[in-house]
Amino acid sequence: MTTQAWLFLGMALGLVSFGLALLLYSWVKKQDDGTDRSRKIARAIKEGAWAYLRHLYSALAGVAVVFGIILAIVFSLSGDGFELLTGLETAGAFIIGALCSAVAGFLGMSVAVRANVRTAIAATTNLNKAFNTAYRAGAVLALAMVGIAVFGMCLIYLLTGDPEVVLGFSFGASSLALLAKAGGGIYTKTADIAADLVGKIEAGIPEDDPRNPAVIADNVGDNVGDVAGMGADIFDSYVAATVAAMLIGFTGFLTAPKETQIFYTILPLILCIIGIIASVIGLQFVRVGKNGKPGTALNMATVITCVIFAALATILFLVMRWNVGALIATVAGLAIGVIIGFTTGYFTDDNYQPVRRTAEIAKSGSALNIISGLSYGFISIAPSLFGIAAATLVAYFSAEAFGLPGVYGVGIAAVGMLSLTGVVVANDAYGPIVDNAKGIAEMSNLGEEVVSRCDVLDSAGNTAKAITKGFAISAAALTVLALFVAYKEQIEHYLPSGKEFTLSLLDPLVLAGILLGAIVPPIFSALLMLAVTKNAFKMIEEIRRQFREIPGILLGTVDPDYTTCVGLASQGALKALVLPALLAVLLPLIIGFVLGPAALGGFLGGSIFVGIVFALFMANSGGLWDNAKKYIEAGNCGGTGSDAHKAAVVGDTVGDPFKDTAGPSINTLITVMSLTSSLFAPLIAVFHLFG
Amino acid sequence: MTTQAWLFLGMALGLVSFGLALLLYSWVKKQDDGTDRSRKIARAIKEGAWAYLRHLYSALAGVAVVFGIILAIVFSLSGDGFELLTGLETAGAFIIGALCSAVAGFLGMSVAVRANVRTAIAATTNLNKAFNTAYRAGAVLALAMVGIAVFGMCLIYLLTGDPEVVLGFSFGASSLALLAKAGGGIYTKTADIAADLVGKIEAGIPEDDPRNPAVIADNVGDNVGDVAGMGADIFDSYVAATVAAMLIGFTGFLTAPKETQIFYTILPLILCIIGIIASVIGLQFVRVGKNGKPGTALNMATVITCVIFAALATILFLVMRWNVGALIATVAGLAIGVIIGFTTGYFTDDNYQPVRRTAEIAKSGSALNIISGLSYGFISIAPSLFGIAAATLVAYFSAEAFGLPGVYGVGIAAVGMLSLTGVVVANDAYGPIVDNAKGIAEMSNLGEEVVSRCDVLDSAGNTAKAITKGFAISAAALTVLALFVAYKEQIEHYLPSGKEFTLSLLDPLVLAGILLGAIVPPIFSALLMLAVTKNAFKMIEEIRRQFREIPGILLGTVDPDYTTCVGLASQGALKALVLPALLAVLLPLIIGFVLGPAALGGFLGGSIFVGIVFALFMANSGGLWDNAKKYIEAGNCGGTGSDAHKAAVVGDTVGDPFKDTAGPSINTLITVMSLTSSLFAPLIAVFHLFG
Repeated sequence: MTTQAWLFLGMALGLVSFGLALLLYSWVKKQDDGTDRSRKIARAIKEGAWAYLRHLYSALAGVAVVFGIILAIVFSLSGDGFELLTGLETAGAFIIGALCSAVAGFLGMSVAVRANVRTAIAATTNLNKAFNTAYRAGAVLALAMVGIAVFGMCLIYLLTGDPEVVLGFSFGASSLALLAKAGGGIYTKTADIAADLVGKIEAGIPEDDPRNPAVIADNVGDNVGDVAGMGADIFDSYVAATVAAMLIGFTGFLTAPKETQIFYTILPLILCIIGIIASVIGLQFVRVGKNGKPGTALNMATVITCVIFAALATILFLVMRWNVGALIATVAGLAIGVIIGFTTGYFTDDNYQPVRRTAEIAKSGSALNIISGLSYGFISIAPSLFGIAAATLVAYFSAEAFGLPGVYGVGIAAVGMLSLTGVVVANDAYGPIVDNAKGIAEMSNLGEEVVSRCDVLDSAGNTAKAITKGFAISAAALTVLALFVAYKEQIEHYLPSGKEFTLSLLDPLVLAGILLGAIVPPIFSALLMLAVTKNAFKMIEEIRRQFREIPGILLGTVDPDYTTCVGLASQGALKALVLPALLAVLLPLIIGFVLGPAALGGFLGGSIFVGIVFALFMANSGGLWDNAKKYIEAGNCGGTGSDAHKAAVVGDTVGDPFKDTAGPSINTLITVMSLTSSLFAPLIAVFHLFG
Repeated sequence: MTTQAWLFLGMALGLVSFGLALLLYSWVKKQDDGTDRSRKIARAIKEGAWAYLRHLYSALAGVAVVFGIILAIVFSLSGDGFELLTGLETAGAFIIGALCSAVAGFLGMSVAVRANVRTAIAATTNLNKAFNTAYRAGAVLALAMVGIAVFGMCLIYLLTGDPEVVLGFSFGASSLALLAKAGGGIYTKTADIAADLVGKIEAGIPEDDPRNPAVIADNVGDNVGDVAGMGADIFDSYVAATVAAMLIGFTGFLTAPKETQIFYTILPLILCIIGIIASVIGLQFVRVGKNGKPGTALNMATVITCVIFAALATILFLVMRWNVGALIATVAGLAIGVIIGFTTGYFTDDNYQPVRRTAEIAKSGSALNIISGLSYGFISIAPSLFGIAAATLVAYFSAEAFGLPGVYGVGIAAVGMLSLTGVVVANDAYGPIVDNAKGIAEMSNLGEEVVSRCDVLDSAGNTAKAITKGFAISAAALTVLALFVAYKEQIEHYLPSGKEFTLSLLDPLVLAGILLGAIVPPIFSALLMLAVTKNAFKMIEEIRRQFREIPGILLGTVDPDYTTCVGLASQGALKALVLPALLAVLLPLIIGFVLGPAALGGFLGGSIFVGIVFALFMANSGGLWDNAKKYIEAGNCGGTGSDAHKAAVVGDTVGDPFKDTAGPSINTLITVMSLTSSLFAPLIAVFHLFG
């Protein structure tokens, strides 16, 4: 097949995937949305979510336009003389990237805020129907995302033939992801913590009680944080991994025949195409019997998709007689990704020692519970880092053994790992939908049995989420390593001296860069977490005020003022985004233009290594505390209401911004910083003060 | 002056310093140790401390002998044929290093457990007398340590003329430090947490109440953790920095005339000599008026010593017409060290926003207090990392500008930073002595006024400690960077191929090494903290048992069984040491001999970068929570007994193992790993499976 044929096939399959998403969407929309009461609550959640998205997207539109203009000017001036076309291409790709990510996120939210109530109503019939409603809604986001991403990348490469322009697309997607993920993360945890602290602990009312003024904000938060934010986050890793491998292929085969160079540049796109096919087939296998286990169904989907992908890739490589080294790298990336996912599950699964010991020690109070959860979180980084190291070595040396540049193997391994994206996103988006469904079932008084069915669905979501999260962070890590290689190749390509760019750990500029880069992920996490504590503090005051001034609320005779809480969460999140977002884009540019490309290389390295460690330990400690609390609530170590339970609630609250705000946002942070560096590499290679 | 003259001068001044320490010791011993009651309590603490040290040192003696034999065999076989002398030299230096560190620690402990009661009794007269007693006792440890270190290094170099043998000395000191620091850290926090949780919270008795069965263990802990452990830790940085710079001088001037090479090899020792003189003079300036501020006195000592050191060094360099690049590097290291110390103080000082906001937010419960303290801890790493990066750049380029190898500048900057060691140790050892004095004053009923005087002394110790701790971690960080350079030079020197050893960030083995190295500091911290929670859990059970079974204890009619608690803390700490200590020594060897020198270089890099970040954030978050609690206890945000106070106590308890167990032990961990690597570099360069 010719290059063009592959690109057209990619666009066609992208459209098919998007079409399937729309079909599933209309199926979900047709389901019963129940009683007046449930509709009213669902509408409140939907309106809250829209209000936030409107604010977020209009802010983003402004940012996109400003950035687009800057990119257009900078890249017009970067070549020999004024080349408007280069500038417009990069700016255009950037805006399209941001737009595509926004469309996918929007569609995912749109279906999620409809599927929540429909899942609750379906649960009045049986578990199976409810599971299908929620899972198909999750699949809408997954299929739309994968489809748009592959369509966009193929189209841009078809039009320009230049992977650097596709880099602009990726930068657009990542910039949006950073704001969507971090903003959504702050929003959801502000509402969650405030609702819990005042509602559960002070007022003694249950979770998801309609008398709690923050309950709608809390449910909105699940959607903006876990659907829109998480969707944008994985979209961004998916695109970035593909582009990084394309760039490494492009620069790694500069001296090869043109045809070979183009083949290795588009091979990552071909792998994405196989990924789409595998995901579409894999999603068909998600079936749960009438009283079956939804958790097993979710994990089976992951495993089956993997096997299909590996089989398809192997057949294609062997039939086409493509380089086996690239195949080994792909499969190694995929296999290690799955192993990491399941191993990390050990630290957050209540069948194993970490969760149980942490629950046990909660009997001696909050402090020991916190220390224990943090400690196991620290240990939990081992399987992932070990796996990433193994994937790097296997991919590098297997590529090299078959005559490819070793670094190309690393890029391809990241693409292989992310070929699972479709299933991962579907599994992940399923979580907040069933979580919302449970809330709606409680608030609409749909009865004990329905709530308990929703509970089964919810806990399956949590198990699947723990596994996919370890996977997602590791995939993002391998992606930024690939981006890091791409940055190095870009600099080497554009360095006027033509010297080799070694990035030696003992070069003082690299060393200083690493130390400076190591500062960024902790500070970024801290800014997001402090935003959560600050906003939660404000919202707590507001909830207390409503309870104090409107006594009818707690008696259940007057509806609380949900809108003020929704507004507080929304404004607080958007305001808190400015500084972290600026850090992510400006710091690499400052380091690069001032201390030079070697220091920037070190800076990226430092932020990547420390970033991975922080992302993993925060995600896993958070998941562990959450499950330790649930383990106690299931009647162990004294059960609900005991001192151990109170201590576990503190742990869970600390874990909330760990696992849902700071931890997962670090992925996007390091991706954005790496992309900024690669994109501006041609300029930084030429203009810099020192180094 | 000839090389030999300098070495003899170093040994002479080392002996003078040690002699001064003995003089001060006898002065302290002559002070009044008060009533029968105070003597009895002091004796219980002393006996507890001796019991622990006996166990620790006999375990260490075993380890030292086994290691010594292994080193003797390995290094006898490493050259061409069997060279018993090399093996015996290295093994001997190792054992002498361990012994010197042990002697310094022993002397420090010995004076501390005498000075505590004498300080309490002196406080019955006035503040000034009590301050002098405690401070002079701290100076005993400081002067003994600096004296022994300089004497030992000069002697070994004089006898062998080989800095690699001095490396063996440093390795001995560090191995002991690792066990002493980590063991002491586990001991002290086990007792502290258990005593607080059962005593203060459950039984409602005040801190340092003689009815608490863990109160003696708690006071013993201050001595074994903060005096013996901390002393060994700084001893180890001090020696390691000097040896690293000596090695870099030795390998960096291989092609220079012999005389030049030797000069730059011993220049670090000459700087140590200036450091001793500056410290001895600086310690004279520690004076506090009758009602003056002890905190200011401590900080003044630091600043004055700096100025004296800088002045002496400048005069010497100018008079002797030595290379100005080395002078600039020395002074830059020193100046940046002091700036880092004072900047980091911002995050733990209750006059500034981090402590106050964290105290304020404690009103909304423990969870937000924890999140806030962690977040500020994350941010607090910035000044140190920024400073270390600046010191690296300034030292490197100023050395290079004056024709020296840039890396030599980095080594010399670390020595410059550590020239303050004397004052830092004195200030630090002062802390646990006054803390103990306060406990003894309370337990011996010396009266309100005496306790409040001890309180003033104690809080001055805390302020000084926060500053010296930021300084100590940064100095250790610069030291391991120097060791890292030394490792690279060693490998390059011994690599059979004679190829340049670039340690490129994009070499897959280096990258894999970094990822694996990044795992170590978090896991090491986790193991120590889990040991604390496990042991504290056991001791809590024991205290509860005593209260339950012997009702007379709480009535004050029967003395509790202190010995069982002391034994629990002691055995628990020693048992918990095995795994972390093995990790520190075996991991670098496994990585080096299996994946090769490049992977080991990456491994060291990864553990150093992540280690610095963890050491800093843990130390600072811990200090911040401690002071937030004290700020509330001073009557702010609701004061003692309020909900905010309860939340702050949880934060403080989480912070305990952060700041006194895991955080500071990481320094020693990365030093030991770096030393192991440099020591075995000649072997690893030749024998390795891959790479």
